[in-house]
Amino acid sequence: MHFVIQREQFVQSVQHVNKAVSSRTTIPILTGIKIDASTAGVTLTGSDSDISIESFIPTADEEIEYVDIKESGSIVLQARFFADIVKKLPGDEIEISVQDQFATTLRSGSVVFNLNGLDPEEYPRLPKLEEDQTFFLPQNLLKDMIRQTVFAVSTQETRPVLTGVNIENNNEQLTCTATDSHRLAMRTAATETESDELSISNVVIPGKSLNELRQILEDTDERVQIVVTDSQVLFKFKHLLFFSRLLDGKYPVTNNMIPEQSKTTMELSTKDLLHSLERALLLSKEAKNNVINFKTLEGSVIEINSVSAEVGKVTEKMTCHSLEGEELRISFNGKNIIDALKVIDSEYVHIMFTGAMSPFVIRPADHDQMLHLFSPVRTY
Amino acid sequence: MHFVIQREQFVQSVQHVNKAVSSRTTIPILTGIKIDASTAGVTLTGSDSDISIESFIPTADEEIEYVDIKESGSIVLQARFFADIVKKLPGDEIEISVQDQFATTLRSGSVVFNLNGLDPEEYPRLPKLEEDQTFFLPQNLLKDMIRQTVFAVSTQETRPVLTGVNIENNNEQLTCTATDSHRLAMRTAATETESDELSISNVVIPGKSLNELRQILEDTDERVQIVVTDSQVLFKFKHLLFFSRLLDGKYPVTNNMIPEQSKTTMELSTKDLLHSLERALLLSKEAKNNVINFKTLEGSVIEINSVSAEVGKVTEKMTCHSLEGEELRISFNGKNIIDALKVIDSEYVHIMFTGAMSPFVIRPADHDQMLHLFSPVRTY
Repeated sequence: MHFVIQREQFVQSVQHVNKAVSSRTTIPILTGIKIDASTAGVTLTGSDSDISIESFIPTADEEIEYVDIKESGSIVLQARFFADIVKKLPGDEIEISVQDQFATTLRSGSVVFNLNGLDPEEYPRLPKLEEDQTFFLPQNLLKDMIRQTVFAVSTQETRPVLTGVNIENNNEQLTCTATDSHRLAMRTAATETESDELSISNVVIPGKSLNELRQILEDTDERVQIVVTDSQVLFKFKHLLFFSRLLDGKYPVTNNMIPEQSKTTMELSTKDLLHSLERALLLSKEAKNNVINFKTLEGSVIEINSVSAEVGKVTEKMTCHSLEGEELRISFNGKNIIDALKVIDSEYVHIMFTGAMSPFVIRPADHDQMLHLFSPVRTY
Repeated sequence: MHFVIQREQFVQSVQHVNKAVSSRTTIPILTGIKIDASTAGVTLTGSDSDISIESFIPTADEEIEYVDIKESGSIVLQARFFADIVKKLPGDEIEISVQDQFATTLRSGSVVFNLNGLDPEEYPRLPKLEEDQTFFLPQNLLKDMIRQTVFAVSTQETRPVLTGVNIENNNEQLTCTATDSHRLAMRTAATETESDELSISNVVIPGKSLNELRQILEDTDERVQIVVTDSQVLFKFKHLLFFSRLLDGKYPVTNNMIPEQSKTTMELSTKDLLHSLERALLLSKEAKNNVINFKTLEGSVIEINSVSAEVGKVTEKMTCHSLEGEELRISFNGKNIIDALKVIDSEYVHIMFTGAMSPFVIRPADHDQMLHLFSPVRTY
């Protein structure tokens, strides 16, 4: 293997595939990044067996030449050093060549690195997925949908299926759902499919995979193709493939959890509510249970308060944009509400309560593509 | 105690004094910030018994009114919560009042915090220092001098006096020295004094104190007054007092350590050398000893290399701006040299070697107010 490559493109590809590499793997070859040079270009692969990322740099793209392939071949190099090394090389180009025994030489400017490589034949092959269950989304929309749901997945391994985000796609409508059984976040969007009969359900992608994917997604409306199989999901970009395993198990049915009626409904400024709860959390966090108390007063006013026996208490009044229905006193985990308010980009939110002991719903005031559901906390 | 204060000024003062407060103190009252309201203004104090910081907000400054004092008095409030609370209050003003039993109320906008205060009579009084040993420095120069020396203090408690920076002031010349016995950083500057006979030596300020002070210092040439006593040092700003204890013990005499002659002298680009050593450190860090090898070649060229048995090796050649004297092969702790190069603001450095087994010196090429001394590492 022997090629000369533009450093900037190479660094970006290495950084992308490096996201899949874990230093804690039990399979030694997976601590490396695989480099394949062919006449078409250079392919980099990283994997921790849960996530695999493949990035391709073509020899040339329209008028720019990225790679000069002098000899095809493959090598695996220790990811931990390789990513740092290419970032710190001084030249605009990097020359990489493999000699006997996987000994690899990197040259850039007046710097020469001689690295001990690993046998590329040992590196596992990535799966070829059947592409019959597939749909498309703009990158920026996919990025939003992940941001607005993934924070609500469970971090506890007692019910593994809840550590993922559930994906359903019916009638060109995509629904992402995450819940840790105390709160639930749901986001819907229209998708494009190639077949009318596509129906995807119980596809649960690990939250960890989505958090890595989110870092690769860019704020562009270029499309991503999503391919679903029984055990894997693949996100296909222009020059990048992102594979993730799916979680086993039946994702709970969540539709029937969402209350259809409301006894107390209010509209509030998202930012004002967020800041008020953040202040209240300062004390409720100290009491270690994050409990914040919430009640309606006369004249469209609500009161938020929290107490820490050691430090003191905080009380805050806020005027609602609108407030209808029954009087209410309720307590909740303030941290969970704050997490949800942070991902709502709308100026106002609707909150729908169905009594002090029942789950309640927060939605953006200006669209119905997002919903957050919370259990109240019993304080007596 | 009862006053109304501009939030912005108050937040900044709280943040300043909070730097002195440690949550790990064994003296409960020191987990708090003391607030004193008098007719002149509001004074805040924080202390961990090593460092004490006092910040004063006058009632008014020229045309702006900062504080409206309604009743004089004092209180101590838990620093951990208080600093977060004032930062998150919504209004431009904060009203603070103390009721019975040190119960304290903070009001801002529609928010009310009721906090449990502590008895201000328990709070230790700050010392009144004799101001007969005193000199002056611009803030930005003091900030530079700290940055350029404090990184070299020892982090090991086996010789406590080396965990501080030694200050000497003779003939209006200030010298700051830090060493961990493997490397030494020295910085000098002209100071202003009020007496010709000022002679300060063996004044060792803990590195930790200087790191806190550095965060308060601003990039202005306004003067700071420095007051030295046998056991304490005081930095006096316009509205801020920063006290630190001094370290006990005799600071080593360092002047005679610095070689006066040089067998090999070179001038190099500071940035090129820094980046080259950073690349070499990638591998020598893995070998866990940070050892980098350095040698002169023909024609004003030097070679830098490092080896990790596991990962591989790196070799880099660099052309010197100038190179004079004997051939040289030397090994050193690359991390120490990198630390020093990072605080040298000059474009070029002079390196003066006196043989492979002797200490060597790095200086900025364009002034003689800074010097870094290093022991070589024996590799055979």
